[in-house]
Amino acid sequence: MMKRIGILTSGGDAPGMNAAIRAVARKALHEGLEVYGINYGFAGLVAGDIFKMDLHTVGDKIQRGGTMLYSARYPEFAKEEGQLRGIEQLNKFGIEALVVIGGDGSYHGALRLTEHGYNAIGLPGTIDNDIPYTDFTIGFDTSVNTVVEAIDRLRDTAASHERTFVVEVMGRGAGDIALWAGVAGGAQDIIIPEHEFNVKAIADRLRRSRELGQKHAIIVLAEGVMHADEFAKELSAYGDFQLRATVLGHVVRGGSPTARDRVMASQMGAYAVELLLQGKGGLAVGIQNNKLVSHPMLDLFDAKHQAELSLYDLAQDLSF
Amino acid sequence: MMKRIGILTSGGDAPGMNAAIRAVARKALHEGLEVYGINYGFAGLVAGDIFKMDLHTVGDKIQRGGTMLYSARYPEFAKEEGQLRGIEQLNKFGIEALVVIGGDGSYHGALRLTEHGYNAIGLPGTIDNDIPYTDFTIGFDTSVNTVVEAIDRLRDTAASHERTFVVEVMGRGAGDIALWAGVAGGAQDIIIPEHEFNVKAIADRLRRSRELGQKHAIIVLAEGVMHADEFAKELSAYGDFQLRATVLGHVVRGGSPTARDRVMASQMGAYAVELLLQGKGGLAVGIQNNKLVSHPMLDLFDAKHQAELSLYDLAQDLSF
Amino acid sequence: MMKRIGILTSGGDAPGMNAAIRAVARKALHEGLEVYGINYGFAGLVAGDIFKMDLHTVGDKIQRGGTMLYSARYPEFAKEEGQLRGIEQLNKFGIEALVVIGGDGSYHGALRLTEHGYNAIGLPGTIDNDIPYTDFTIGFDTSVNTVVEAIDRLRDTAASHERTFVVEVMGRGAGDIALWAGVAGGAQDIIIPEHEFNVKAIADRLRRSRELGQKHAIIVLAEGVMHADEFAKELSAYGDFQLRATVLGHVVRGGSPTARDRVMASQMGAYAVELLLQGKGGLAVGIQNNKLVSHPMLDLFDAKHQAELSLYDLAQDLSF
Amino acid sequence: MMKRIGILTSGGDAPGMNAAIRAVARKALHEGLEVYGINYGFAGLVAGDIFKMDLHTVGDKIQRGGTMLYSARYPEFAKEEGQLRGIEQLNKFGIEALVVIGGDGSYHGALRLTEHGYNAIGLPGTIDNDIPYTDFTIGFDTSVNTVVEAIDRLRDTAASHERTFVVEVMGRGAGDIALWAGVAGGAQDIIIPEHEFNVKAIADRLRRSRELGQKHAIIVLAEGVMHADEFAKELSAYGDFQLRATVLGHVVRGGSPTARDRVMASQMGAYAVELLLQGKGGLAVGIQNNKLVSHPMLDLFDAKHQAELSLYDLAQDLSF
Repeated sequence: MMKRIGILTSGGDAPGMNAAIRAVARKALHEGLEVYGINYGFAGLVAGDIFKMDLHTVGDKIQRGGTMLYSARYPEFAKEEGQLRGIEQLNKFGIEALVVIGGDGSYHGALRLTEHGYNAIGLPGTIDNDIPYTDFTIGFDTSVNTVVEAIDRLRDTAASHERTFVVEVMGRGAGDIALWAGVAGGAQDIIIPEHEFNVKAIADRLRRSRELGQKHAIIVLAEGVMHADEFAKELSAYGDFQLRATVLGHVVRGGSPTARDRVMASQMGAYAVELLLQGKGGLAVGIQNNKLVSHPMLDLFDAKHQAELSLYDLAQDLSF
Repeated sequence: MMKRIGILTSGGDAPGMNAAIRAVARKALHEGLEVYGINYGFAGLVAGDIFKMDLHTVGDKIQRGGTMLYSARYPEFAKEEGQLRGIEQLNKFGIEALVVIGGDGSYHGALRLTEHGYNAIGLPGTIDNDIPYTDFTIGFDTSVNTVVEAIDRLRDTAASHERTFVVEVMGRGAGDIALWAGVAGGAQDIIIPEHEFNVKAIADRLRRSRELGQKHAIIVLAEGVMHADEFAKELSAYGDFQLRATVLGHVVRGGSPTARDRVMASQMGAYAVELLLQGKGGLAVGIQNNKLVSHPMLDLFDAKHQAELSLYDLAQDLSF
Repeated sequence: MMKRIGILTSGGDAPGMNAAIRAVARKALHEGLEVYGINYGFAGLVAGDIFKMDLHTVGDKIQRGGTMLYSARYPEFAKEEGQLRGIEQLNKFGIEALVVIGGDGSYHGALRLTEHGYNAIGLPGTIDNDIPYTDFTIGFDTSVNTVVEAIDRLRDTAASHERTFVVEVMGRGAGDIALWAGVAGGAQDIIIPEHEFNVKAIADRLRRSRELGQKHAIIVLAEGVMHADEFAKELSAYGDFQLRATVLGHVVRGGSPTARDRVMASQMGAYAVELLLQGKGGLAVGIQNNKLVSHPMLDLFDAKHQAELSLYDLAQDLSF
Repeated sequence: MMKRIGILTSGGDAPGMNAAIRAVARKALHEGLEVYGINYGFAGLVAGDIFKMDLHTVGDKIQRGGTMLYSARYPEFAKEEGQLRGIEQLNKFGIEALVVIGGDGSYHGALRLTEHGYNAIGLPGTIDNDIPYTDFTIGFDTSVNTVVEAIDRLRDTAASHERTFVVEVMGRGAGDIALWAGVAGGAQDIIIPEHEFNVKAIADRLRRSRELGQKHAIIVLAEGVMHADEFAKELSAYGDFQLRATVLGHVVRGGSPTARDRVMASQMGAYAVELLLQGKGGLAVGIQNNKLVSHPMLDLFDAKHQAELSLYDLAQDLSF
C-alpha cells in the first residue's frame, strides 16, 4: 500500500499550477497519504530539495500565479545517471510515486521514473495549450484572458488614433492563444503557424474594412510565425495602415488563475492522486470533451496537439 | 431565399450577449443577409422598436457587458394576441426569421413564432447556467470569475481577522455558479439546491478545520437554498465561527465578458445564422462536450439542466 | 540608541497595510534596527504573539490585501492593566518603540504606550478615510476603485434593463468612499452623512433625468446614512424608478492595493521609522497636500475628518 | 455673454480623457451653454469635423479608455494659416471658446486661438505626467496601475524561475511612471532619466540581494533612458542574474480609468468651464497640493515638470 507521494513542477510556470499542487496535496492528505514537495523540478529532485507538505503549506495558494515549488530546466535528467540520482533521493525520502506538473517535455522524465518502478502521473501545465490528448492545459484560459484584456486596452488607443495594432502573443509553436484571444478580442485577422496566410490578402481585407468605415483594427500574431516588427514591415509594403507593433511578453504567463483554470487544475490534481492510488503510472492526465482522461505518456510523444481551426474560419467570417 | 433576419435579447442580461449579437449580425452580413435589431425583447418586437443594423452598430461591442438591445419582461407574449402583434411587425419590417438570446423562458416565445412560420433560433444567454441541453450558457463563465474575484477579496479580510464568510451567490434555482466558484475559490463548503446538506455536519467540519489550524473559511451558498443571514444564523447555533454573511448581488451579472464567454457567444451566434440559412427553426443552440449542438426547443421544456455534481464531491475532498 | 522596534496592525484590515508593514520593516532593517512583528494587534502584544522579522518575512507581500500580522479587537487595552501586560512583553522582547497601523481607535493604545516611555507612531490604515489630519488613509484608494468597478458592472445591468440602482457602500460614519466612488462612477446622486438630502428632491431629479432620456441611473448611498433597502423604499414612494438595491459589503475591504495605496503606505512606513529614530512618539502620520506630515495623537482625538464636499457639488452639477 | 463652446482632444490618448470630455459637456450644459465636439484634434477643427453634443453623447462614457473625440497629429496648426482656417470653422459653428485636452504640445495651439480672441483652456491629458504646474496629469494614475498589475504578473514568473526582469515602461522623457510603478511594484531598482545611475552599482546591489536570499528581482526602466534589451545587455556584463527584458508598450495607454483619474478629470473639466465663463483663456489647468489651479500657458513653455525624486530614494532604502 502506497504511503508517500511527491509533487514537482517543471518547465515554464503557468497560472493554476498552485491550484494543481494544492489539489494533489489535499486529495492525498484526505486519502491518508503523506505528501512531499520537490522544489525546482527534476533539478531539485536530484539535489534532494524536498520537504514535507501539510494543509498549511498549500493554504491560501489556490489564487496565486506561478508555482510555489519553483521550476528549473534540467536537461541532465534525460540521462540515466541523472535519473538514478533522482531515485536515490526518492528512496531517501521514502517517496513511492509522483505527480509531475509541466509541459510535455517533463513527461519524458516522468516516464523514465515510472519505468524504474516509481509511478508518475503527468498534469499538463503550460499556457501554450500545445499538449496532445487534452483539449486544454492548465494556464491556457488565464493566459488567453490576459491577452484579451490587453487587446481591449490597445483597442482604446487604436480607436482613438485610427490605428492598426499587430499584437504578438506567446504560444511557442502553437497558435491556440492567438486563435482564442483573436476571436475573443474581435481581431481583424489572426496569424498562426497552423494555417497558411498571405500578407497581400490580409492587406486587401484591411483596406476593404477601412473602406467600410472600420478605421482601426487588431491583428493577432502567434510568436511561432514571426516577430511583430517583421510582420508589420511586410504588411506596410501593401499600404499605410497606421501600423503599430506590440509584443505581449512574459506578462501573459503570470497573474491569478481564472476560475476555469483553478477548477480544471483541481480536478486534474485530485484525479492524479486517484490514478496513483490505483497503482497506475506513466499516464498523462487530460480533459477531453469536458471529461477527465488519462493516456499513456508514450502515446503523447508521437502525437501532436491540434489547434481548434474552426475558430480561424469563424474569425474570418466575423471580421470584414 | 431568406433575406432578412432579426435579433433580440430577452430575460436577465448576461455578459457575452453583445458578443453573440455581434456574431449574429456579422455572420449574417457576411452571408449577404440584412439584419434588424429589436430593442427590449418581445416587448419591443410588439411595439415595433426595430432598427437596421450594420457593421458599425456592432463595432467595439464584443467587450461590453449587458445587452445593447436592452431587455424587458413581457408576459403578454405568452398569449396569441401578443404573438400576432409581433408578427405584424415582422411583416412590416420584412423580417423572415429571428435569433432570440435569453433564458429558456424566452424560448417559448421563439417556438411560437416558429410555429407561425417565422423560424427562430434560441441562444442560451443567462449567468445561471440553468438551461438543459447545453453544458454552458453565455455569461456563466464571466459570472463565476466575478464571484471568484470577490471571494479572493473576502479571503483577505477573512484571513486577517480569522473569520468565516458565508457568501451568497446568484443562480436562481441552480447551484452551478456556487459550485464552480466554490471550487475555484477554495471554499470550505458549498451549499446548493441540488445536493442535501446538514448544518451540524458543516459546523463539525468547520470546527475540525479550525482545530487543524485553518482559522478562516469561505462557505459559498447558492441563493436558491436560502439567504446568507438565515444560514449564518443556523450555523452559529453550533459554535462561534466568527461568521460574517455577505450577498454578492447584481454585480455578478455585469462586467466585460471573459474570453471563454466571448468565444462561445461568437460561435453560437454564427451557428444560429447557419441554422436559419438551412431553413431551420424552433431549435435551441447549445455546447455539449465542446461541440456546438442544437435541439428542438420542445425537448428543453421537459428537461432539467444537471449541475456538475462531481465538483461537489471534489470540493468536499479538498477541504477539511 | 534605539535598536529594536515592533509593528502591529489594529482595527479593520485595509489594502496597503502589508505595503506599510513591509516599508517599516525594510526601512528599519536598512537603518540597522531589528524588527519584530506583533500578531493580532494589541491582543497579540499582551499575549506575546511576537516574532522576529527579516527580509523574507516581508518579501512578496507588497501586493497582498489584508494584513499579514492579523488584526483583532481588544478593548481590554484601554485599561492600564492591559497596557502593563503589553509593556511586560515589550520588555521581554527588548522592543523599545512601535509602529501601529490602524484606525484612530488604535491611536489611543499607541499614545498610552508612548506615555509609558515606549514611543509609538501611528499610521492611518482604514478604508473609511475617516481619520483627521490626513487627506487620505491607507486602503481608501483601493476601496474606492473596487466600488467603482462594481458600479461599472451594475451599470451594464442598469442600462440593459433601464433600472435605477441604489448602491450602499461602506465607510462607517464617513461619506468619503461614497463621494469619490459616486463622482468616479457617474452617479446620479450621492447620499452621505455629511450633507443633508431630500428624498423628494432626489426623486424629482431622477424623473427629470428620465425625461431627458437617461433611462438608467446609479445612486450611491453611504452606509452611515441608512440601509439601501430603506432608502429604496422611501424613494419608491415618489415614483416608479425600477429600483434595485444592492449592498457592497466586505468585498470592498480586500484585494490587492492600488499603486497609490502602495506608494503612500511605503512612504508613511519609512517616515514612521525616521520619526522613531528621531526619538519621537505619540505622533500620527498623515499626508496633507501631497506631503508627509505628523501630528500629536492628542490633537486627533478632538478633531474630525472633513469629507471633500466640493465633490458633492461637482456630482450635482454633472448629473441632471 | 458666451453661449457656445467646443472641446477637442489632442496628442496621445490617455485614460480619463472621456471623463474630462463628459465633465466639460455636462458642466457646460448645466450652465446653459451649447457644446460642440471637435473630432481629431486641431486637424478636425480645421476640417470642420464638428458636431453638437448633448447629454446622450457623453452618457456611459466616464468609464471608457481612449478618447471619444479621437486624436491626431497636426503640425500644420503651428502656422498661422492653419490657425486661420480653424478660426473660420469656429466662426461657422459659432464656437466662442474651447477646452483643449492633451499634452503640453497642444497648449501652443490653444494659446494661439486665445490670442486670436477665442479663449481656450488646456487640461493636462497624458499618461506621462510630464506637464509642469500640475502634480498629476489625466491618465497617469491609470497607467501606473496598469504597469503595477503587469509587474505583479511578472513577479509570479520571476519568483517561480528565480529570474530578474527588466521592465521597460512608457513615459517619453519623464520617469514618473517608472518611479511610481517601481515603488508600488517593489522594484529592486528604478532607472529614470532624472537621476544618474551606475550599472555596476546596480549589479552589486542585485548580487547582494541574491546573497541575502532574494532570488528574484524586478528592475523598472523608463523608456527615456534606453531600451530594455540594451540595459539587460549592459547589466549582464557584471554577472548572471537570469535576466529577462520585457517592454510594456501601448497596453499601458488604454483601459478603463481609475477612480482617481476619473475624479480629477471631472474636477478639471468642470473647472475649465468655470474659467471660460469668467472670460478667461490661455490658461492651463492643473492640480497642485490637491487643489485645482490654473496657470498662464506661456509660463508652462519655459518650465519643466519635476519628478518626485523622494520616491527614488525611498525605493533605494526599501530594496536591498
